[in-house]
Amino acid sequence: MSDTLLTDLYQLTMLQAYAARGSSTGSAVFELYARHLPPDRGFLVVAGLEQALDYLEHLRFTTADVDWLASTRRFSGAFLETLADFRFRGDVWAVPEGRVVFAGEPWLRVEAALPEAQFVESRLINLLHFSTLIATKAARCVLAAQGRPLADFGMRRAHGAEAALLAARAAVLSGFAATATVEAGRRYGLPLVGTMAHSYVQALGDESAAFQHYAATSPDATTVLIDTYDTGRAAQTVAELVRSGMKIQAVRIDSGDLAAEAVKVRRILDEGGASTVRIIASGNLDELSIEALVTSGAPIDSFGVGTRLDTSADAPTLDAVYKLQSYAGEPCRKRSPGKETWPGAKQVYRHYDTHGRMCADQMALADEPGVAGEPLLVCVMRQGRRVDAHPSVAQIAAQAQADLARLPMEARCLRAPQPLQPVYSESIRALAASFDSRDRR
Amino acid sequence: MSDTLLTDLYQLTMLQAYAARGSSTGSAVFELYARHLPPDRGFLVVAGLEQALDYLEHLRFTTADVDWLASTRRFSGAFLETLADFRFRGDVWAVPEGRVVFAGEPWLRVEAALPEAQFVESRLINLLHFSTLIATKAARCVLAAQGRPLADFGMRRAHGAEAALLAARAAVLSGFAATATVEAGRRYGLPLVGTMAHSYVQALGDESAAFQHYAATSPDATTVLIDTYDTGRAAQTVAELVRSGMKIQAVRIDSGDLAAEAVKVRRILDEGGASTVRIIASGNLDELSIEALVTSGAPIDSFGVGTRLDTSADAPTLDAVYKLQSYAGEPCRKRSPGKETWPGAKQVYRHYDTHGRMCADQMALADEPGVAGEPLLVCVMRQGRRVDAHPSVAQIAAQAQADLARLPMEARCLRAPQPLQPVYSESIRALAASFDSRDRR
Repeated sequence: MSDTLLTDLYQLTMLQAYAARGSSTGSAVFELYARHLPPDRGFLVVAGLEQALDYLEHLRFTTADVDWLASTRRFSGAFLETLADFRFRGDVWAVPEGRVVFAGEPWLRVEAALPEAQFVESRLINLLHFSTLIATKAARCVLAAQGRPLADFGMRRAHGAEAALLAARAAVLSGFAATATVEAGRRYGLPLVGTMAHSYVQALGDESAAFQHYAATSPDATTVLIDTYDTGRAAQTVAELVRSGMKIQAVRIDSGDLAAEAVKVRRILDEGGASTVRIIASGNLDELSIEALVTSGAPIDSFGVGTRLDTSADAPTLDAVYKLQSYAGEPCRKRSPGKETWPGAKQVYRHYDTHGRMCADQMALADEPGVAGEPLLVCVMRQGRRVDAHPSVAQIAAQAQADLARLPMEARCLRAPQPLQPVYSESIRALAASFDSRDRR
Repeated sequence: MSDTLLTDLYQLTMLQAYAARGSSTGSAVFELYARHLPPDRGFLVVAGLEQALDYLEHLRFTTADVDWLASTRRFSGAFLETLADFRFRGDVWAVPEGRVVFAGEPWLRVEAALPEAQFVESRLINLLHFSTLIATKAARCVLAAQGRPLADFGMRRAHGAEAALLAARAAVLSGFAATATVEAGRRYGLPLVGTMAHSYVQALGDESAAFQHYAATSPDATTVLIDTYDTGRAAQTVAELVRSGMKIQAVRIDSGDLAAEAVKVRRILDEGGASTVRIIASGNLDELSIEALVTSGAPIDSFGVGTRLDTSADAPTLDAVYKLQSYAGEPCRKRSPGKETWPGAKQVYRHYDTHGRMCADQMALADEPGVAGEPLLVCVMRQGRRVDAHPSVAQIAAQAQADLARLPMEARCLRAPQPLQPVYSESIRALAASFDSRDRR
């Protein structure tokens, strides 16, 4: 597949319009950010930068791409000839993956010739929006689980192949212990985990036979599924098998009243001499049901989270946009109702209270001197080339845990959170005001 | 990417367990269906079958796949050796793409050796779930628009690359006129459409200059974006340009009160001698806001639908499952609380009333003789090979329009719809009862 043509048609027709202007196109600054947070989000965990930089670094039109574009008769020969040499040669500033941001704060700032900076919009949003959406959902699950390990089981109802892969990566970035998605494990070096399906138990006909056969062919310590017919009876079978020397690491419960089932199963296992066998719960879980199970005291040791994680089911989109903030040295401001932008290339400066918790984010112009605080955006690409090697998944996960621990309590809570509201510097406000009074772009 | 390893780990460990049993694994029947519909869905439009059959037909483990699996030390050498010859060699029955189904009705029935039928579960659900989800959302938008053309603008906030491509295809299958996603146009032969971005108007500085320059370089009749600064002023500019001979096909409004803006813009265009210029509305639209705009009488000629279409934002998942219904000639039934299955390989027979509307769906055993009605599942694959060439996008879209026109009114309405409830035959009920009394799988 051509990533390059994975874009909106208007990016190509605008590119053609810019090409017709030739060298007169100046340098542009675009910023990518979420205008607002969904009601139940107190923060975002930024993710997807590695894929975004890969895209920018390898962006080119193949001969097949150009031939196909020619076949549509929408483009001039002169324009099509320019595409062979089209590259992204700009600079990129970004908030590193795993860091927390709030509404209005840029995740990414692209500084490049206008045609290049414009053309990359659609795929940059597509990549960064989704990974950030899922990393944020995953972080909420991690907070709810209070230290219990979580695994991503969501591949089958993720929205296609790339969503399944990127969701697995985003989940582990935000603190999940593992994923069940094999290709994500291979591609991103993520820990893999798996159990068995109900159909396996059904096909073997008898739970005792099914569990024994599975354990005999599995090199890992076995996790068995105990809710195909009757959870209590299956738990007794597990206890018998453990007493007879079989290594069963855990049982999984995937239906019913998970808290009540876990209490019952725990008692049967403990009374049956299988107290080392752990209990995994799964089945339409999300951060709210995990929190309810944890606070109920249910003896659940870990959780598998699937569909609702991989689709961020309660809030499946963010209001993520990519907006022109400056062109040819002049700040820009869009004034569409409800979609106004703040002009100028910006930096975010973070401040912490005496307990080390985030207490204020200051938005200032990128070239504004003497602003205090920790700058969040760092230079990650110069003239189309990465500045540094990308951090590992483990490094990003450590960054995310550090930032989650420093969240204000009001932003961290799962229900009706209060996100930090960034404060705009006097310079940005003055620029916006002067802009409006001049009544131009 | 290897589609083959885009699966859950347990599919591989179960495959290993089945391989250890050798030829003793019998033939299995799995059915894929939605257990329930989301509250605001009165029907589903089935889609994604072409991709699912492609997957089955081309399924194989590459040498690189096997080498990587070996490196994980989770699998035996004997098992890994079997993978080179692993193919899907089963039969598949399916409801054709574009047809309407209801809860519980199989979209797909797979009949194959147990390891093959089991292994394909994760990717089959992943493909069919998403395309059906979006085709259904798109059909609701088409019903709401009452004949006005719709375009898919959702690529940027779709969940990754494959979601963007499959959503564009699913939208056109259900009656959308076009998509903005270029690669989807190339891959599936879909009509493409595009306008311009706010940043284009901002960069050119002046709307008159921006519109003229764009028109000069665009071979298509131009659609211009008029809400960057002031919609009324931009509409006047459009009227002036049209009077001076410029070909402007349409204006797009992307923010504000779309109904009020459209009334104002229509008046300015008509009074300015530009009555042939049409109005396109976009901006966070879905079937409910489209219905409100249409019933308000707003002079909007067509709609661009993006984020909420490509993510099915109000219901981003379906309860789609793939369940073992029969194994080695014996019906199976799972009895997990709330997740019980009906045993046996099934067929759906549809009945129509005297007005040609669907009035009853009868679920019967696939081999049950003498059942009246239109059978929905047809054989699409025999021994791992497609039976026929797949219908074209246009043929599928025609099928979808025919089925949507035959929906019961209660299922067709957008709010609190009443889906058809399939009726289970006496044979299925008797089988389930005998099964429960025997207290086995």
